[in-house]
Amino acid sequence: MDRYYMKLAMRAAERSRGKCSPNPFVGAVIVNGGKIVAEGNTQPYGSDHAEIVAIKEAQGKCKGATMYVSMEPCCVYGKTPPCTSAIIEAGIKRVVVGILDPNPQISGKGIKTLQEAGLKVEHGFFAEEITEQLEYYLCYVKRKRPFVIWKSALSLDGKYSASDGSSKWISNPSSRRFVHKTRSQVEVVLAGIKSVAHDDAMLNARGLRSAKQPLRVILDPYLDISLTSKLVESAEEFPAMIMYIKADESKIQALKDKGVQLKQSAGYKDELDLKAVMNTLYEMNLYSVLLETGNRLSESFWKAKLVDKCMIFYGNMILGGERSIFRHYDRHNMDRAVPLEKIKVKKLLDNVLVTGYPLL
Amino acid sequence: MDRYYMKLAMRAAERSRGKCSPNPFVGAVIVNGGKIVAEGNTQPYGSDHAEIVAIKEAQGKCKGATMYVSMEPCCVYGKTPPCTSAIIEAGIKRVVVGILDPNPQISGKGIKTLQEAGLKVEHGFFAEEITEQLEYYLCYVKRKRPFVIWKSALSLDGKYSASDGSSKWISNPSSRRFVHKTRSQVEVVLAGIKSVAHDDAMLNARGLRSAKQPLRVILDPYLDISLTSKLVESAEEFPAMIMYIKADESKIQALKDKGVQLKQSAGYKDELDLKAVMNTLYEMNLYSVLLETGNRLSESFWKAKLVDKCMIFYGNMILGGERSIFRHYDRHNMDRAVPLEKIKVKKLLDNVLVTGYPLL
Repeated sequence: MDRYYMKLAMRAAERSRGKCSPNPFVGAVIVNGGKIVAEGNTQPYGSDHAEIVAIKEAQGKCKGATMYVSMEPCCVYGKTPPCTSAIIEAGIKRVVVGILDPNPQISGKGIKTLQEAGLKVEHGFFAEEITEQLEYYLCYVKRKRPFVIWKSALSLDGKYSASDGSSKWISNPSSRRFVHKTRSQVEVVLAGIKSVAHDDAMLNARGLRSAKQPLRVILDPYLDISLTSKLVESAEEFPAMIMYIKADESKIQALKDKGVQLKQSAGYKDELDLKAVMNTLYEMNLYSVLLETGNRLSESFWKAKLVDKCMIFYGNMILGGERSIFRHYDRHNMDRAVPLEKIKVKKLLDNVLVTGYPLL
Repeated sequence: MDRYYMKLAMRAAERSRGKCSPNPFVGAVIVNGGKIVAEGNTQPYGSDHAEIVAIKEAQGKCKGATMYVSMEPCCVYGKTPPCTSAIIEAGIKRVVVGILDPNPQISGKGIKTLQEAGLKVEHGFFAEEITEQLEYYLCYVKRKRPFVIWKSALSLDGKYSASDGSSKWISNPSSRRFVHKTRSQVEVVLAGIKSVAHDDAMLNARGLRSAKQPLRVILDPYLDISLTSKLVESAEEFPAMIMYIKADESKIQALKDKGVQLKQSAGYKDELDLKAVMNTLYEMNLYSVLLETGNRLSESFWKAKLVDKCMIFYGNMILGGERSIFRHYDRHNMDRAVPLEKIKVKKLLDNVLVTGYPLL
């Protein structure tokens, strides 16, 4: 039954995806006498961790219980007191842990604290699945930058648009709904000024019940964005930030007046330094970024090796022509091809979503 | 239970795929007193149909039985006597039919013959699935040409090779095995001289136990093929046919001496007339063709609207560069995109196979 309860904890964790950065979204289940007495998932940053939510919900039914928790409980004072103390005080006797916290202040020490208090602790359940589930957080802690998801919608022959520039709609409503859901599960949606201008894109999460909105980040080297664009006009309602290299003070002020955040950043010619961009987002405690970049900016992210995961939506059509992605990201020879691992496939009606992890 | 037994008949039919053209591969199951007493599937052209195979196997246990057969039994003398007579004589009392035979000599008349003899007949079971299962035969009868499957292996970004021309291997061994199996299930594998010369391709079905071999058809307008190519050298063992526009008598004779069939056909400049090619194959009673054509010849088949089904194998890699398929088959605008319907997806380890039917 251990595996079953851990799966429940992992499922509970999903309820916090996109809602508690930079904390990992963790799930906890408390079982006593063969009965589930409580479930919890991480609350927004600064509020309760999953373990505390579950202990509170259990209302004193924790004596002698087992807790299943997808990531090692914390043992330090951060924004909240350590979970290990609460677990020990509640009288829990056994803790089953998914994976260790990679944070060096906690890693292994959380478990040790529990063991020293006489609790029985096991770990390593569904390690592979939880490592994937918490990939945003793990990247953020280990690589000190946000996890980057590159998304594209292509025809089956790999074109991002018809040769006249039209691309509405390569993907079907089911795929687009999936994109909106993904937007609500990441901290940042990032695009370049060209695609925002071309589509007058909003980049918010739409068509979902009570969706958490991502921060919309636009890379706009010389602040070319129109003050009447939908993105700017909606900045009071949906957070938006523009990163630029150089701009007039008047344009900066006008955008600020509309509620847009502005960040100056390093850059060269027409492009911002993408590593600096990632560093800014990291320092803002944002741990996941969905790229909705056009062809050229996408190539730059790949060249900078700043893509951790791919999401390619294939529309059910042949387009032909020359608008093929990655023309300037030429790997030249099969030996230099970028392999993708852990390929997964999902059918979205007559569209096909392929996801994988590039080995850059 | 009718649906269950019809599924068994459909499964039995699959055992004859690629082995009985131009007859449809049909399956039959005889059930008597709630027990399956026999199963049959169509034998090679000129030999027994599925119904006859099943009746013979039942050895007299047909009195009062029900027969499930995926396509309407024939009622005419062809290479074999009519199945309807055998069914009536065997004492079968009820016949459950999948789909009607589109052949105007039979369509509806097979069922009528059985009904007039006092048998109970029902039809229309799994019509959609069987229509797909028998798509080769249905195309052959209705459109008077073979069913054409276009196959390609692409990187996830839609490239058929790296920019230096290397393409080994975009698809993985599991995908390649699937291609060999498909070769053994069609009557014809067709390629252009350029790709045969480039890869020194054999185009036979390899790595399978007792695979039926397809006829290998090469479009080679001016008989440029090398006499020492693997394809020519293997012509005694695996059937091969070359179609050409014009050539020296000596080259023709040399190829014939190696066991290659030759057919002169209409053509213009560097390309054979593809409709004439299809007509030749139709007249040879070959009802399915797998295209293993390179980029340019593939484009010609699409332009000629001679593609009924697509099989695209996506290798788990990004290649970049300019070698994108269909550069010269430019649909220009989204409204002119070629939609594919009945999209299916199959994961072959880390490769993805997408199949669909283009609406050309």
